[in-house]
Amino acid sequence: MTQNTAEKSPVTLLGLGAMGTALARTWLDAGHPLTVWNRTPSRADALVSEGAKAADGAAAAVAASSLVIVCLLDDASVGAALDGVDLTGKDLVNLTTTTPAQARARAAWAAERGARYLDGGIMAVPPMVGVPEAGGYVFYSGSRELFELHQEALAVPVGTVYVGEDAGFAALHDVALLSAMYGMFGGVAHAFALIRREDIDPSAFAPLLSGWIAAMAGPSVLQTAAQLKSGDYTTDVVSNLAMQVAGTPTFERTAAEQGVSPELIQPYFELMRRRLAVGSGEEDLTGVVDLLLK
Amino acid sequence: MTQNTAEKSPVTLLGLGAMGTALARTWLDAGHPLTVWNRTPSRADALVSEGAKAADGAAAAVAASSLVIVCLLDDASVGAALDGVDLTGKDLVNLTTTTPAQARARAAWAAERGARYLDGGIMAVPPMVGVPEAGGYVFYSGSRELFELHQEALAVPVGTVYVGEDAGFAALHDVALLSAMYGMFGGVAHAFALIRREDIDPSAFAPLLSGWIAAMAGPSVLQTAAQLKSGDYTTDVVSNLAMQVAGTPTFERTAAEQGVSPELIQPYFELMRRRLAVGSGEEDLTGVVDLLLK
Ligand SMILES: NC(=O)c1ccc[n+]([C@@H]2O[C@H](COP(=O)([O-])OP(=O)(O)OC[C@H]3O[C@@H](n4cnc5c(N)ncnc54)[C@H](OP(=O)(O)O)[C@@H]3O)[C@@H](O)[C@H]2O)c1
Ligand SMILES: NC(=O)c1ccc[n+]([C@@H]2O[C@H](COP(=O)([O-])OP(=O)(O)OC[C@H]3O[C@@H](n4cnc5c(N)ncnc54)[C@H](OP(=O)(O)O)[C@@H]3O)[C@@H](O)[C@H]2O)c1
Repeated sequence: MTQNTAEKSPVTLLGLGAMGTALARTWLDAGHPLTVWNRTPSRADALVSEGAKAADGAAAAVAASSLVIVCLLDDASVGAALDGVDLTGKDLVNLTTTTPAQARARAAWAAERGARYLDGGIMAVPPMVGVPEAGGYVFYSGSRELFELHQEALAVPVGTVYVGEDAGFAALHDVALLSAMYGMFGGVAHAFALIRREDIDPSAFAPLLSGWIAAMAGPSVLQTAAQLKSGDYTTDVVSNLAMQVAGTPTFERTAAEQGVSPELIQPYFELMRRRLAVGSGEEDLTGVVDLLLK
Repeated sequence: MTQNTAEKSPVTLLGLGAMGTALARTWLDAGHPLTVWNRTPSRADALVSEGAKAADGAAAAVAASSLVIVCLLDDASVGAALDGVDLTGKDLVNLTTTTPAQARARAAWAAERGARYLDGGIMAVPPMVGVPEAGGYVFYSGSRELFELHQEALAVPVGTVYVGEDAGFAALHDVALLSAMYGMFGGVAHAFALIRREDIDPSAFAPLLSGWIAAMAGPSVLQTAAQLKSGDYTTDVVSNLAMQVAGTPTFERTAAEQGVSPELIQPYFELMRRRLAVGSGEEDLTGVVDLLLK
């Protein structure tokens, strides 16, 4: 598996949790010389038998490669692991999930220590790592030089999407997409609750539900983006706000009929009604976005 | 456009709003003899010039065809339009949006009047009607004989999906899918709010957002269905409930950093936490469905 090692750039990886371990294997398989470190050293054993070098401490691991990738639990664990470690001249890539503000602060912290900094937000779960067909990728933001210099190594585990020099943008994209996904999960949970006590096979219902969501997501998201850009929320509206607000009682009454709490759908309906009260009935639903901003 | 009229079955349509008018055109284009009625008669004028017959009252319209399709504002308007009209021996197809209980009551009402009854929930907006590539369809439930007998005429405007003899099931499927869509819209609105004040182009962000939702919807919905069926919420779990609950503060903190109200994402997170308190951390998110049931 470790062919062409001489041609591949060395990689250091700090953190061998579920995600770090999955990432590590892809660099080994691709022939990158790999140095690893984990707080609990035993988690490196299997990787060492597959060709990785286990460093004796985070400082030694960092010293081994110019490209240092960190995938730890949270921002605090990054600070703890790298406390007092010399980062001068290093290219630090932080794949730990954080908020945008934490990523920006970590970028400033790295700059003070003489390191270039790239932040990453992983849009994949471990089984998707090293499986290109699975469609996972990492959002990157921060140093473009770093991203371009190490493009080959960074592209090994999953795809890469660079979203700007602002170190907080990768985390912001990551959190935004996952937040939207949880909104979708909420709608899906409500839908399954509605049919839960009926003689309807959930597995026959599932493809109808997921197909509808997938079909509606593309056009509605693109339309919202275009309307936010133009500032005109009345462009190309098919079902306007007034009509959609008029339809909400059917959804609420059905929830009541089926004995389902409306707590996952009502907040959005409330915002639709609040927007109708201050906006135009001819608009799309885009005005809801503005109501969320404080 | 009205070729082969002799071979096609006659259709009566009550209701020429935005949706009724779109439906009407497809039957005319397909060569079905079409009789229409609308409370405000002038809305029939254009269709009459295209070949439709305008009936002088709902009773006359119903008398003209054995297949009577109704597409009015709501259940009350169906009752108002058909009040006192002889439905004996008719095949009544109600495409008006209602709750499942309203559909069941309307089915009983039709049976009392000697009519077979099929209920429909339209999963399309008027521009998708008559455009097969647009992927719209109608959920049908109720009389299977009626559905099979009139399959050809019913399939003219958009696709058809028959979901059972229970007259309420079409409305239930319709409401469930649209409720889930509003949940997804809520997540999308939150995501756009997060980036609203940043130097990020909404139209560059949009395909990433919609692509993620579409990619996540299929596997998560199928998984939820399988777990609800088996009753085992720990099967094939990739990111378990405990890990996901541990991740929620990042989403809430990011919302606070970006000045975005968490009202659209918090209800689902609360349910995740409530489920973790009573269920197992090794589960998937499926237990949230049960918490919604009263
Ligand atoms: N797993 C996923 O599905 C997934 C998906 C996308 C993003 N991510 C992100 O990837 C990162 C890693 O996730 P994971 O799934 O690998 O987590 P994990 O399995 O829980 O592993 C956590 C890692 O962090 C280390 N760690 C925790 N506290 C530490 C400290 N104070 N000092 C030093 N090391 C510390 C652990 O070391 P020990 O072994 O010594 O405990 C372990 O290596 C997280 O930020 C996560 O949000 C994960
Ligand atoms: N448009 C969509 O995107 C869409 C999508 C899916 C499902 N649907 C459903 O399709 C149905 C019709 O929608 P639409 O968009 O065509 O609505 P619409 O444009 O508002 O038209 C409403 C229709 O109902 C009639 N009506 C209202 N109250 C009445 C009463 N008391 N007696 C008799 N007729 C009455 C109106 O007649 P007048 O002309 O005399 O007012 C008109 O024909 C609704 O149930 C809607 O939920 C619509």
